[in-house]
Amino acid sequence: MQHERLSGLIAATYTPLKTNGDLNLDQIPPLVDHLLGSGVTGMYVCGSTGEGMSLSTGERKQVTGAFMQAVNRRVPVIVQVGHNSLADARDLAQHAAEVGADAVSATCPSYFKVSDVPTLVDCMADLASAAPDTPFYYYHIPSLTGSSLDIVDFMRRGGDRIGNMVGLKYTDTKLHEFLECLTIDDGRFDIVWGCDEMLLGALATGANAAIGSTYNIAAPLYRQIIDAFTRGDMNAARQHQLRSVQMIRTIYQFPFHPAMKEVLGMLGIECGPCRLPQKRLSPGDTNRLMEDLQAIDFFSINGVVL
Amino acid sequence: MQHERLSGLIAATYTPLKTNGDLNLDQIPPLVDHLLGSGVTGMYVCGSTGEGMSLSTGERKQVTGAFMQAVNRRVPVIVQVGHNSLADARDLAQHAAEVGADAVSATCPSYFKVSDVPTLVDCMADLASAAPDTPFYYYHIPSLTGSSLDIVDFMRRGGDRIGNMVGLKYTDTKLHEFLECLTIDDGRFDIVWGCDEMLLGALATGANAAIGSTYNIAAPLYRQIIDAFTRGDMNAARQHQLRSVQMIRTIYQFPFHPAMKEVLGMLGIECGPCRLPQKRLSPGDTNRLMEDLQAIDFFSINGVVL
Amino acid sequence: MQHERLSGLIAATYTPLKTNGDLNLDQIPPLVDHLLGSGVTGMYVCGSTGEGMSLSTGERKQVTGAFMQAVNRRVPVIVQVGHNSLADARDLAQHAAEVGADAVSATCPSYFKVSDVPTLVDCMADLASAAPDTPFYYYHIPSLTGSSLDIVDFMRRGGDRIGNMVGLKYTDTKLHEFLECLTIDDGRFDIVWGCDEMLLGALATGANAAIGSTYNIAAPLYRQIIDAFTRGDMNAARQHQLRSVQMIRTIYQFPFHPAMKEVLGMLGIECGPCRLPQKRLSPGDTNRLMEDLQAIDFFSINGVVL
Amino acid sequence: MQHERLSGLIAATYTPLKTNGDLNLDQIPPLVDHLLGSGVTGMYVCGSTGEGMSLSTGERKQVTGAFMQAVNRRVPVIVQVGHNSLADARDLAQHAAEVGADAVSATCPSYFKVSDVPTLVDCMADLASAAPDTPFYYYHIPSLTGSSLDIVDFMRRGGDRIGNMVGLKYTDTKLHEFLECLTIDDGRFDIVWGCDEMLLGALATGANAAIGSTYNIAAPLYRQIIDAFTRGDMNAARQHQLRSVQMIRTIYQFPFHPAMKEVLGMLGIECGPCRLPQKRLSPGDTNRLMEDLQAIDFFSINGVVL
Repeated sequence: MQHERLSGLIAATYTPLKTNGDLNLDQIPPLVDHLLGSGVTGMYVCGSTGEGMSLSTGERKQVTGAFMQAVNRRVPVIVQVGHNSLADARDLAQHAAEVGADAVSATCPSYFKVSDVPTLVDCMADLASAAPDTPFYYYHIPSLTGSSLDIVDFMRRGGDRIGNMVGLKYTDTKLHEFLECLTIDDGRFDIVWGCDEMLLGALATGANAAIGSTYNIAAPLYRQIIDAFTRGDMNAARQHQLRSVQMIRTIYQFPFHPAMKEVLGMLGIECGPCRLPQKRLSPGDTNRLMEDLQAIDFFSINGVVL
Repeated sequence: MQHERLSGLIAATYTPLKTNGDLNLDQIPPLVDHLLGSGVTGMYVCGSTGEGMSLSTGERKQVTGAFMQAVNRRVPVIVQVGHNSLADARDLAQHAAEVGADAVSATCPSYFKVSDVPTLVDCMADLASAAPDTPFYYYHIPSLTGSSLDIVDFMRRGGDRIGNMVGLKYTDTKLHEFLECLTIDDGRFDIVWGCDEMLLGALATGANAAIGSTYNIAAPLYRQIIDAFTRGDMNAARQHQLRSVQMIRTIYQFPFHPAMKEVLGMLGIECGPCRLPQKRLSPGDTNRLMEDLQAIDFFSINGVVL
Repeated sequence: MQHERLSGLIAATYTPLKTNGDLNLDQIPPLVDHLLGSGVTGMYVCGSTGEGMSLSTGERKQVTGAFMQAVNRRVPVIVQVGHNSLADARDLAQHAAEVGADAVSATCPSYFKVSDVPTLVDCMADLASAAPDTPFYYYHIPSLTGSSLDIVDFMRRGGDRIGNMVGLKYTDTKLHEFLECLTIDDGRFDIVWGCDEMLLGALATGANAAIGSTYNIAAPLYRQIIDAFTRGDMNAARQHQLRSVQMIRTIYQFPFHPAMKEVLGMLGIECGPCRLPQKRLSPGDTNRLMEDLQAIDFFSINGVVL
Repeated sequence: MQHERLSGLIAATYTPLKTNGDLNLDQIPPLVDHLLGSGVTGMYVCGSTGEGMSLSTGERKQVTGAFMQAVNRRVPVIVQVGHNSLADARDLAQHAAEVGADAVSATCPSYFKVSDVPTLVDCMADLASAAPDTPFYYYHIPSLTGSSLDIVDFMRRGGDRIGNMVGLKYTDTKLHEFLECLTIDDGRFDIVWGCDEMLLGALATGANAAIGSTYNIAAPLYRQIIDAFTRGDMNAARQHQLRSVQMIRTIYQFPFHPAMKEVLGMLGIECGPCRLPQKRLSPGDTNRLMEDLQAIDFFSINGVVL
């Protein structure tokens, strides 16, 4: 299938919510402007970061539509449609294609664990066939799906069977698997790195694009990693990566995605809380998070003066 | 909340499908008649057994409606509404109440793991409030949800907060936890056993009702366990439980739920395959399953002559 | 192999240590007298409870010798010899036989996980052959070894290969597996229950003997469970089992084995701390433990007036 | 503590055994010569690769002594002394110091899981104090020990408490943790990479030394990765790393360490089988392994003509 490969920093976008948990679609345009202004080169919508699994199918379509409109073709938009019910996943894939998504992506079902690679191929073939003319990226995230099948084997077999499968969002830490995926059939697939805190290692291993949560709040920092790596200045690249790691450790003191949404709020983009089952930060937690981020000079990354 | 406690053998019902995976609602009345004829005293609809998570929300409502109609108040019907999206779960709970379900039940979300007991209470309070006049049973099944929080603590805290929480479907093997749940506040909650192959141990520990898959195909055998236990004939009870364990081991040679549906077919109730991500049995597998079941004299349990 | 089956309550004995962590062999005779006085009918030495894996091979031999001498054939003594190094395990098995142990028992190695049942048979055959005239019990405790192979298959294959394998210490919660093991070849093996807090369910399922930690501190309570079960008074049996479960929950607030040793101290048998990597209780913790045990009237079980 | 940092490729050495499983110390000198001839710059003795946990304490001392003698100070030798019994570990540490080991290293106990970082510090302080004048490297390998505590926190706290702790063997895939460890107190510790198949990513992240199994059989290939990385030729570095990944995938078709020992045999260094609980390769497996390695042109790495 003809398609343009992803490159640079793709933000796994947050889904803005109101305090009561309802969608807050009005905040999508300012979020998109913030992201594009900070150097993001694509959007991955309704993934884990975007709480796709915590939204109803109807809500996922609304969020997708709002992002498509706000982005307005300035960068590619990939829509994550994974669902325990493949019927819903197909419905979402079809909708994504209808509203012009540049690509569809999906996790495997996870309530019932997928038992083997051929069954995983069956699942993804079923799902991807609902948007047969739209490029498809499998979303490998074993820490959440509980499915840790051989991803190299899956890509080989899936590529033979699923006409529109073009790539992979690889959200794990095994660079050797990532390298093998990159080199299948002389680089047939677009393999996108999904672990922000290991970006430097992935660049060395051959990554050309990355999808992640923290590109929402610190794209300029990751840009510096890429630039330093590109010009061969490994020491600088490590310093920038270390700053990202410290930022992430600071945020991980709290429930991660709810804390990330608070950080976006600190940057001027109100995204509200996360839905259950994710927790809310108390006001005290939010204050402590802000202080801890100030202590590591986080806000200068975005040129923000608090 | 006033409610009648469950007792006896509650079948976690299968959802009949056509060969192409579509719902086959026409097979629900004969399935219900088979179950009632075999001694089942309640139905648990759209649980793990019924592939609830693999159906769309609309399909789950159709299946629920069809069971309500087919059962027609002859025995209680509990409707499982757990979903990664609590919005869908609330929608399903409200529907279940509207069509007159005797109780609602739900797993916790499982894509994002619930981090602690208070958050689990928050989730279930949110969900149960959508059907506030319908008794609610929490569905504890850590092997599938990946959530193994302290269930005794949850029942205590949840009972204080969730007005309509009356009980628990306990699907784990820890009889000591089960015993503690049974005895909270002098037996405030209706704690239902969910591990068929350990029924005898659960009866000794105080179980009065059980929900499970294999009551679809072998209720008379489990009735014999209960009867032998009740009259104090432990040797007979063990012999019957052993027969159940061997039956389950025989079926577990194959993907479990798809194989169970084939067994129902052998008993005259065509239930079709399971949906992906569960696998289909090959015709050869189905033949071998039938032979292996014949070898352990399974079919005599239901008075079937093949 | 001719051997007498175990019956009743076998204490998995603690290993008394001095405050500095050295062996305190002088405390073994009073511990043994306490156990025999409380109704214990056998001793399982240097198991998980006895910190066998935290002792050197030489120390394990000393502890074994001291228990053999103190017990002086009044009840059977089983010696646990499992070790990551099968060479050490063989050495320990041979020593146990030399000092007259009634049986040898062993976990599998656990640093390298055993990959399949035939390899597990190979391991245990190698080990058991070092004491070929002494009955051998395999020690199944997947929560600590990380090895959860099919134990029924292992018993069948192991029994065919290992001449002196007579039984199993089953420390898991799956009563159906336990039942299957009990009934292999019409009850060929002596299958001993290893989960104290589920004793009642195990009795119903056919247990005739149990090995556990809490028989060190509450054998009279467990005797009451057995007696009530035997006379068919299930309600009384449940009450006693509940009391055991509450006792265990109370102790589990703290690191379990170190807290158990403190409880033995409260009963007059100084056993010292556990060795690293297990933690010590602070004096404050020990006080709180004592108060919490008093609050559930624990000490009356042993007729102790504090 | 004054010490020279490790650099380059440290082979986690195999322990040569006879067919009957006994030590084959005579093969240690030729193994050492092979390793030094292939560019290895240090030896890590009796680690996971060397089956340290499967040997008795006495055997570990013999193997250590033989390596010390064969290496004869040409490169640094690190001796792994981790043991479930810290008493044995101390004994081994003291012996290592006595025979002049350049450093001691150890895993934590793993039968009983270490519950928290302060307890891990206690364990390692106890152990390292037995060789107080010898540099100590903690050996972090959560896949085998089951202990996945915060290693950054451990290094900080351990460094404050354990005078001779100088570094870490980091055998996991989280480059961000590795980076944080590298940068503690401006690089206070010698942090050594332990995942051969991700060497390139680790070099980019700042690794200066690596300890691993496959440096026994393919040091020249890893040298090429390092050289290409050093001269900034990332494409070449990826090609070499890919070759290593394919080699490892080929070997992983079989039980890994037993297969690695067979490969050493193919290279002319007879190392025998692994001890139980690791399996032996059948002659057919060994033949297939050799053919598969020939098919990926493995033997040319070592200049071997088969």
